[in-house]
Amino acid sequence: MSKGLPKRSENYSEWYNELVKRADLAENSAVRGCMVIKPYGYSIWEKMQRALDDMFKETGHTNAYFPLFVPKSLFEAEEKNAEGFAKECAVVTHYRLKNDPDNKGKLIVDPNARLEEELVVRPTSEAIIWSTYKNWIQSYRDLPLLINQWANVVRWEMRTRLFLRTAEFLWQEGHTAHATKEEAIAETEQMLDVYATFAEEFMAVPVIRGKKTANERFAGADDTYCIEAMMQDGKALQAGTSHFLGQNFAKAFDVKFSNKENQQDYVWGTSWGVSTRLMGALIMAHSDDEGLVLPPKLAPIQVVIVPIFKGAEQLEAISEKVLPIVKTLKKLGISVKFDNSDKQSPGFKFAEYELKGVPVRLAIGARDLANGTVEIARRDTKEKKTYEIDGVVEVIQNLLEEIQENIYNRALSFRTANTLEVDSWDEFVKTLDEKPGFISAHWDGSSETEEKIKELTKATIRCIPLDAKEEEGKCIYTGNPSSRRVIFARAY
Amino acid sequence: MSKGLPKRSENYSEWYNELVKRADLAENSAVRGCMVIKPYGYSIWEKMQRALDDMFKETGHTNAYFPLFVPKSLFEAEEKNAEGFAKECAVVTHYRLKNDPDNKGKLIVDPNARLEEELVVRPTSEAIIWSTYKNWIQSYRDLPLLINQWANVVRWEMRTRLFLRTAEFLWQEGHTAHATKEEAIAETEQMLDVYATFAEEFMAVPVIRGKKTANERFAGADDTYCIEAMMQDGKALQAGTSHFLGQNFAKAFDVKFSNKENQQDYVWGTSWGVSTRLMGALIMAHSDDEGLVLPPKLAPIQVVIVPIFKGAEQLEAISEKVLPIVKTLKKLGISVKFDNSDKQSPGFKFAEYELKGVPVRLAIGARDLANGTVEIARRDTKEKKTYEIDGVVEVIQNLLEEIQENIYNRALSFRTANTLEVDSWDEFVKTLDEKPGFISAHWDGSSETEEKIKELTKATIRCIPLDAKEEEGKCIYTGNPSSRRVIFARAY
Ligand SMILES: [Zn+2]
Ligand SMILES: [Zn+2]
Repeated sequence: MSKGLPKRSENYSEWYNELVKRADLAENSAVRGCMVIKPYGYSIWEKMQRALDDMFKETGHTNAYFPLFVPKSLFEAEEKNAEGFAKECAVVTHYRLKNDPDNKGKLIVDPNARLEEELVVRPTSEAIIWSTYKNWIQSYRDLPLLINQWANVVRWEMRTRLFLRTAEFLWQEGHTAHATKEEAIAETEQMLDVYATFAEEFMAVPVIRGKKTANERFAGADDTYCIEAMMQDGKALQAGTSHFLGQNFAKAFDVKFSNKENQQDYVWGTSWGVSTRLMGALIMAHSDDEGLVLPPKLAPIQVVIVPIFKGAEQLEAISEKVLPIVKTLKKLGISVKFDNSDKQSPGFKFAEYELKGVPVRLAIGARDLANGTVEIARRDTKEKKTYEIDGVVEVIQNLLEEIQENIYNRALSFRTANTLEVDSWDEFVKTLDEKPGFISAHWDGSSETEEKIKELTKATIRCIPLDAKEEEGKCIYTGNPSSRRVIFARAY
Repeated sequence: MSKGLPKRSENYSEWYNELVKRADLAENSAVRGCMVIKPYGYSIWEKMQRALDDMFKETGHTNAYFPLFVPKSLFEAEEKNAEGFAKECAVVTHYRLKNDPDNKGKLIVDPNARLEEELVVRPTSEAIIWSTYKNWIQSYRDLPLLINQWANVVRWEMRTRLFLRTAEFLWQEGHTAHATKEEAIAETEQMLDVYATFAEEFMAVPVIRGKKTANERFAGADDTYCIEAMMQDGKALQAGTSHFLGQNFAKAFDVKFSNKENQQDYVWGTSWGVSTRLMGALIMAHSDDEGLVLPPKLAPIQVVIVPIFKGAEQLEAISEKVLPIVKTLKKLGISVKFDNSDKQSPGFKFAEYELKGVPVRLAIGARDLANGTVEIARRDTKEKKTYEIDGVVEVIQNLLEEIQENIYNRALSFRTANTLEVDSWDEFVKTLDEKPGFISAHWDGSSETEEKIKELTKATIRCIPLDAKEEEGKCIYTGNPSSRRVIFARAY
């Protein structure tokens, strides 16, 4: 709080790092690459969880819990998946510590407590879950199996950043099994839709729904769908993925069912997940140089009321007016904080709640009291207005809705302004450097071209948009024919 | 479902194991000692979580998240705690797998990816949390710090049982820091109260609030409070613990604050937790030879409606009567399932919902329809009665309350009937074998006596009840003087 945040325009990356720490969202821990999610940050994550969980349940899913550890022999069963994650696996090799004989008060790993088979700390749970599904699925009557898990996973990353890329992160992972290919694809698409709806309606972050290229697919999937969001620096952030697994895991774990005709077949699978990475997207999409800007639907505190007073008597007079408002707001399900502490000045409080992204701030002083008014400031536009205290609850309700819409629209306009159709390689390179954003361009469909472009520009194909229209064109790099545009961008 | 459960009277332990599996609560996994919590079991756990979480928040706590891993050097900082858990620690030593050069398609631990410092998978989080608190606490203004975490923990157990003792389990762990000893003790006691209230009002399990003896204290605590419940075989189950940590962790991690007089002092700590073990307590406290008996407040399905019909027309007529009831119940927040599937017979369904512990079952057939009646069965007493369909919603509401109370009262009566005051060693030994339950007896306060009694009888001191009255007596074993009775029992 002592000095301001770095400015986005000067150092976007530093601005993000500092904002995450100063707004009490998260911090680095004593464990390499693992973060501590602080109470304020966690309370936003809880709101995300609640909204997503409701959506999962409405679409027929139930939660369950599977082990943290995966025996190595299970882990390697689906080869592509295993290969994809092998380099990032934390491995448990021992199950006991003992006193260090050479160093009183210290412990060492007990060499006699070596596990017969090493355990991988789950980087994702397909292996352990499909090995379980094998016993749960015999007949078409057992299908579809629609299960979600909220869990921590570990992927040993070398370069980490709070929320965006950490060795341990929190997420949910859905794992479903189906009798037919069509049904599994429909599920994959449905869950992509759930994610897109959540991103747009709760996070107020517009997203592009698309498919990944073969290069960027989840290891072990036949198809990976994703939603891609644009951050304020023009970079893309993949905000959620939904995978059509084909019969790959069913074959690897021998999960068969007898269909209505009593024939045996492998089941079809999907998996889909979003993680605490969404916190990064939320922060980077909306916040400004003063701090967080939170969409009302995910703000732990939606309304803060700051009294401006001298002495107990003034505070009491203000409280008398404020407390009924607080009560009414709470009854309406609006989370409100009346900050009547006398330890900090109103100015300090204003800055603090701006930093924390509280959408609506009321200030009320002696003069307001006399006039029957209150000053209301909205966090998104920083606009302040004076209102009569009588209708204030309705004003707040409307304002919360308006802010939710406004920050969505602002993000959408930003994305529109920073998405360009580009048709030549020179323009492509120039645009990436001068006007970072999404580039809609033709690509010849080959992995080689994709990799070459990445090598030359650090831009990747974020996705082939689901709504991409058929269009004759030439690949931006090779000039080979292409039938639709894809989205290129540099990405988090 | 094919054959009945083992009978409690014949093999209580087998009855429990089978019930957990057949009622779809949990099962063993491919990972030694780790369980899979199945959807139905998990949905009960979710209800527990929600209720507890609300209570934690009402008492001023917020959630946060700390890393899964604890570097060994931090883990060993509080010596007693480290010693207490060292023998049960899963240890991560490597962070990468690689292809096995001798075995195509297989992976091995990459010997070049050995961690410089081993990471302990948290068996409990005091170490990682207190090392973080050091940076969060400078002044009395930062206190109290009231944080809870929902997480998985790992304690490498050699003999495991579903829910009761597993290598990985889910729990919540509260970790608080205070300016004074008195405040920390008050917090410890408050959280014990929260646990007791939850056990009694939600789980319908009466508990004894008490303190552990020095022998049974949490490693690193100055005092451990606990709640103890009696299972139907007379054994005790520790259902929750709340620890007064004194300044032990503050000293180990150098967590000091400056008080109002600007003097430096170590902060005072507490920690408290309940786990998926509660699921074991819930199951064992109430269930019977037909299956689960769930308290309505934690039942995922509170009411099931089974139509008894032949053909689509009858079903339609029944549905017409039933659907408005379903709607009304849902509006009242009662979770209801109308099982109109024609794949199973009503008898099969009855048995299934009995097994799953659904508190209230409605059955409605053609004759009921003609009479304007419905048959209602309650799971706890298995009593069936016919009611007029008109007032049925109110009947159900009352019944749910009545069942909640009744199973609590039944458990309480059972405990009362199986708690004996015993004053001689012979009677003590005889009672343990012939009438297992709680024994209220005098003890001389020495750890030696406590251990001797345990060695001879396998009974431990469950707790020194908080409401134990002062009473002159002689130790059951040594005859030495004692001033209050303690609770002995064999325990899970
Ligand atoms: Zn994408
Ligand atoms: Zn106890």
